[in-house]
Amino acid sequence: MTLRVIPGLEARLALAEAVARDAGAVALDYFKRRETLIIETKRDPQDVVSIADREVENLIRARFAEVYPGDGVLGEEYGLTPGTSGFTWVIDPIDGTSPFVNGMPNWCVSIALLHDDVPVVGVIASPCHDELYAAALGMGATLNGKRLELSPERNIRNAVTGIGANSHVSPATVARMVEELLEAGGNFIRNGSGALMLAYVAAGRLVGYYEPYMHAWDCLAGYCLVREAGGWFHPFPTNGEGLTKGAKVLATGPGAIDDLRRIAGV
Amino acid sequence: MTLRVIPGLEARLALAEAVARDAGAVALDYFKRRETLIIETKRDPQDVVSIADREVENLIRARFAEVYPGDGVLGEEYGLTPGTSGFTWVIDPIDGTSPFVNGMPNWCVSIALLHDDVPVVGVIASPCHDELYAAALGMGATLNGKRLELSPERNIRNAVTGIGANSHVSPATVARMVEELLEAGGNFIRNGSGALMLAYVAAGRLVGYYEPYMHAWDCLAGYCLVREAGGWFHPFPTNGEGLTKGAKVLATGPGAIDDLRRIAGV
Repeated sequence: MTLRVIPGLEARLALAEAVARDAGAVALDYFKRRETLIIETKRDPQDVVSIADREVENLIRARFAEVYPGDGVLGEEYGLTPGTSGFTWVIDPIDGTSPFVNGMPNWCVSIALLHDDVPVVGVIASPCHDELYAAALGMGATLNGKRLELSPERNIRNAVTGIGANSHVSPATVARMVEELLEAGGNFIRNGSGALMLAYVAAGRLVGYYEPYMHAWDCLAGYCLVREAGGWFHPFPTNGEGLTKGAKVLATGPGAIDDLRRIAGV
Repeated sequence: MTLRVIPGLEARLALAEAVARDAGAVALDYFKRRETLIIETKRDPQDVVSIADREVENLIRARFAEVYPGDGVLGEEYGLTPGTSGFTWVIDPIDGTSPFVNGMPNWCVSIALLHDDVPVVGVIASPCHDELYAAALGMGATLNGKRLELSPERNIRNAVTGIGANSHVSPATVARMVEELLEAGGNFIRNGSGALMLAYVAAGRLVGYYEPYMHAWDCLAGYCLVREAGGWFHPFPTNGEGLTKGAKVLATGPGAIDDLRRIAGV
């Protein structure tokens, strides 16, 4: 791959890592206090996670706006704020709100950066596990500073595949993807956070991740991580209106591309 | 429920907690060193987890034999050693070997105690999350010392259900249970450890757990935890040969019993 040098990329990666860490700490504080908050505020658990979601997104937006006021931002909670620099941050303040609200550790903060419609930075923080995944175009991917490199020897039969689905997808479709994966000799997990499972693909913990319908803020950071670790992803329609709509998401290690493309139909 | 007093139960619960903690620490050490061990021993990852499994089971067996030499022990790795006291420990040294071997945190140490075919102690250690779940007949269930009590208001529609399956179950059967759960308005996770997901049921993080075929060592500790937290379970055939064979496993919070019994067909 011939790389263009993108001025300002390294500094933006460093900032994204710092911001993801701080955002993760704020989210973790909410996570630990969620039962108290539910009682104190007399709100239901879903409201409490929404409050946390918004506060974390505001924190992330403020930090980026301070250093790079010309960068655009697309966040799950507050939508798209267009920029002028050619860079757009794409953020999910808390991915895995279902685990979060139910007290399970599998949720994360996901921060991507788009440049010319390509995810050029991907940072995912998993605060309950004290893990920070980080990647930038041409600079490789790391987990807590340790380089990630995917092995071509892992495939759907000797490793585990992550799956996800939401209410946009029919029960029959979910059942069919499970059956096809198992029939092909695969096995699946679903930990409740698509972004975190994409990070696990980059780390070689899962050999692939497939979800029939996800948004840009759920997948772009993971996509950047997987590519930089040596894997493959099915392009997300990042240009124009595609960016704010959902699409099929598939990312895999090098040894699972054909099998998972067949199952995902891409 | 009228409780018979079982002499020696409280002391055995305390021992099981201490042993699970120590066993968890040994397993965690293997988990952290697994990549180095794979390279050093030139073995494949599955062999390395088997070595860890056996060492942890030996540790657990030795600790119980020292204090209660008359108690029987059934372990996943070394089978059944009958006892004379009327008590039988049922242990899974590492439940969730697939997450363990792939570097994911969702694995646990599971220790149950049977008395007259009833699970009277259940202790599950989740070392990556520093969590210890403990229960004994009539004494309630705790997570890191905090009492667990299940709410009847949680059901499959407003909470998450855990599922599992292994190669004993056909892909079509797994697909059908997924489809039925989603059609009924439910949602699922599968984190790779059945015992840990049963502990999550006791903690109210999941509203139920269903797996069509599990062994006694995978489920009995979780069953005891769920019952003591106020939930329900489908009895496991613990008497005679049933103890070493597999069976359908279902545990639920009080608000999900009917829905999940229908889906599980029990």
